[in-house]
Amino acid sequence: MNSAATSPFVAACIDAIGAAHVLTDPHDTAPFLTDWRRRYTGSACAVLCPSTADEVAALVRLANEHRVSIVPQGGNTGLAGGATPDASGAQAVLSLKRLNRVRDVDPHNNTITVEAGVVLADIQARAEAAGRLFPLSLAAEGSCSIGGNLSTNAGGTGVLRYGNTRELCLGLEVVTPQGELWDGLRGLRKDNTGYDLRDLFIGAEGTLGIITAAVMKLHPQPAARVTALAALPSPHAALDFLSLAQRHAGPLLTGFELMSDFCLQLVGKHFAQMRYPFAQRHAQIVLLELSDSESEEHARALFERLMETALEDNLVEDAVVAENLAQSKAFWNLREHIPLAQAEEGLNIKHDIAVPISRIGHFIDETDAAIAKAVPGARMVTFGHLGDGNLHYNVQAPEGVDAKAFLAQYQSAMNQIVYDSVHRHRGSISAEHGVGQLKIDEAAQYKSDVEVRLMKTLKAAFDPLNLMNPGKVLR
Amino acid sequence: MNSAATSPFVAACIDAIGAAHVLTDPHDTAPFLTDWRRRYTGSACAVLCPSTADEVAALVRLANEHRVSIVPQGGNTGLAGGATPDASGAQAVLSLKRLNRVRDVDPHNNTITVEAGVVLADIQARAEAAGRLFPLSLAAEGSCSIGGNLSTNAGGTGVLRYGNTRELCLGLEVVTPQGELWDGLRGLRKDNTGYDLRDLFIGAEGTLGIITAAVMKLHPQPAARVTALAALPSPHAALDFLSLAQRHAGPLLTGFELMSDFCLQLVGKHFAQMRYPFAQRHAQIVLLELSDSESEEHARALFERLMETALEDNLVEDAVVAENLAQSKAFWNLREHIPLAQAEEGLNIKHDIAVPISRIGHFIDETDAAIAKAVPGARMVTFGHLGDGNLHYNVQAPEGVDAKAFLAQYQSAMNQIVYDSVHRHRGSISAEHGVGQLKIDEAAQYKSDVEVRLMKTLKAAFDPLNLMNPGKVLR
Repeated sequence: MNSAATSPFVAACIDAIGAAHVLTDPHDTAPFLTDWRRRYTGSACAVLCPSTADEVAALVRLANEHRVSIVPQGGNTGLAGGATPDASGAQAVLSLKRLNRVRDVDPHNNTITVEAGVVLADIQARAEAAGRLFPLSLAAEGSCSIGGNLSTNAGGTGVLRYGNTRELCLGLEVVTPQGELWDGLRGLRKDNTGYDLRDLFIGAEGTLGIITAAVMKLHPQPAARVTALAALPSPHAALDFLSLAQRHAGPLLTGFELMSDFCLQLVGKHFAQMRYPFAQRHAQIVLLELSDSESEEHARALFERLMETALEDNLVEDAVVAENLAQSKAFWNLREHIPLAQAEEGLNIKHDIAVPISRIGHFIDETDAAIAKAVPGARMVTFGHLGDGNLHYNVQAPEGVDAKAFLAQYQSAMNQIVYDSVHRHRGSISAEHGVGQLKIDEAAQYKSDVEVRLMKTLKAAFDPLNLMNPGKVLR
Repeated sequence: MNSAATSPFVAACIDAIGAAHVLTDPHDTAPFLTDWRRRYTGSACAVLCPSTADEVAALVRLANEHRVSIVPQGGNTGLAGGATPDASGAQAVLSLKRLNRVRDVDPHNNTITVEAGVVLADIQARAEAAGRLFPLSLAAEGSCSIGGNLSTNAGGTGVLRYGNTRELCLGLEVVTPQGELWDGLRGLRKDNTGYDLRDLFIGAEGTLGIITAAVMKLHPQPAARVTALAALPSPHAALDFLSLAQRHAGPLLTGFELMSDFCLQLVGKHFAQMRYPFAQRHAQIVLLELSDSESEEHARALFERLMETALEDNLVEDAVVAENLAQSKAFWNLREHIPLAQAEEGLNIKHDIAVPISRIGHFIDETDAAIAKAVPGARMVTFGHLGDGNLHYNVQAPEGVDAKAFLAQYQSAMNQIVYDSVHRHRGSISAEHGVGQLKIDEAAQYKSDVEVRLMKTLKAAFDPLNLMNPGKVLR
């Protein structure tokens, strides 16, 4: 044990939850001190692993007593450093991993009640076993936990139809910064009896309290999911096509993903087995997904009618509807290989942005032009959840230029071009990844003084001692 | 003009927005001082009618200067007295009626940006003109305004598929209690750059600030809406049938309303032209609505398959699918005549409650039994949005007993039986009507100390002078 283990705070934590669950050995704590992207490494007086909400509350009361600040952590898969402590060694990481019980599945209410540490994929599986769908789905689903999903209001691939994590939550259990337990675990679709505390804790990244459990919404299992691809000349055409697709399919349309030609070139270059899906190249490809409550045949017929209309109207240049489940998966595979292909191509400057859906074409045109002017030859890896107005808008070094040197030289200039453009279009500089420590200054910079003041008012009112994840979301 | 008109505050308001828009004559102010149900009448130093958000902000700054409290009011159709001033005559009503511009319709973004005073039916019409659906729909839609809908988080008939007003809002413009203007008018599906201020103002009934404009979500227009009726032996059977209907129809199911036999008896008694829809009487009838993006034929075929399965499984006793639009409307008409019929029958004790959907059968069984024990012969008018877990659970005097005397004697005892039962089932005592001044004590009584403290913390932090609609939502 290192010397920190003997501090009165750590000793009190050991008394509260047992020595086995208060980690201080560097070998044990290391996995909790570096973020998933290995961008941040911090230090901690201890990593606390309580197993119940009451234990979490007891630890937070001790933190108050000893004025130790707490960094809550779920699956440690965040992309903005929100769960990594600072370098002081004075903070304690509080891992929610042992709060991993599914407390209740209620198919008639279409809800599941889960503790914060339950892994997302386990919730999906429990829902499926009950004949229901838990639609939150994202790359880290095998290791991220629902408490982290809630604290960062995670997005993912089902937002077009089912919303973000926020829209999937009905109730919360939270330990307040004073170490009280708030039982807001309501499984209600309607409740107008006071202020909306739930949505205040969602997306607050642990700075207003610690989420220990949640009631999440389930949906009926669709009978079939079918995908299709459409080739289009521009993002502007993709917008018109989105309107048409929504008119045809209404809420059955669950995916609408944009992939620029350069994205598919990268996929083809680095994954030779991935076949380009059309006979000729096209500027943009859109992947559509239908989740149908009737049958695969019904979904395919609907897609075919949609594509026929879109071809007749010259909205799309070509289209292909998946013939079977294997082909549906192959189309998604193309989309999922884009992040892998861009990683193979070398580091790039990443932006997770959102603009009003109607502005996407203009945003891409204007921002592409500004970047081309600043760095001739810069290659744009543009793809993402067009149906949500959310793009992964990444800048790759010009052909032949060293990626690391490019990042060192251009990262901050590129960020400014992109974020200024986002701001002009009334967009968001962090659509689905949160603020954490990564974007803390930019987030404040693009907000009005009034909004920053309101946020600080909230933080000061809830956490006057600034013990809950300080240095995240806002300074 | 009365003497209040000459107060320094009123004089300053006249300077700010003009004498024509500062009402002090009792004849002019009267319509703003009594609530829609005529349950509360208050007094006011003036009724202020600004026409822009900047004017609202200026008036709130004056209210701060002169320590005058403000009661915001929209269409004055609320059911909980939330927009009626107290009797002191010291408060000012601030009417949002003149903030009635539609600022923007963006079909590609599926959004409409409206000022707080725009009437709900006008938003529906503007959406329809743009080929879109604004799905919020409720009885007062011809006179209520969106600012009031947002401030009370109104529910209505489309919640099963489209959510409450909260779920239909993407962004807000709000005048803070200090008279600053917060521009949070974002039309984004994804934005994780800070605390969720939007949802804090929604449902706060004007106690944390004044909503002056909002970006609301639009949906694709369905190609057809078709209704059907199913006869069932009990609310328990209705729950099983709801699961089956959701499996068959998924998100196309937009309505699932329960009507007990006594409700339909009342409709038949007071509206002789309304025909009972089945050959034999049944304990419960459910009205279902499908909103189909394909066609009326497709919806009817889907309904017929569903009803066939439900009849085969002995889940429903009888069923009828509307043959055409007129019959679809006639079925809704039955449902809409229940409140009218119960009014004809005489005053009753009303409860707007929600429980988890899976608890509805047990809630009705247990609460019916407790009421029958307390008042033998009391007649239960039980109907509502079963798909949302929201019941209008109303107690009518026993046959032949004077309604007024019954209310005077039993109202508080009945409320306690119903609310205690709601609380046991982890429900809400105000599902869609809000707290206002009507339920301010009950709302606090059934909340935990922690929750009341958190709400008071929020109120004190945002509005330390307690000038924004004091005496509403919480004391």
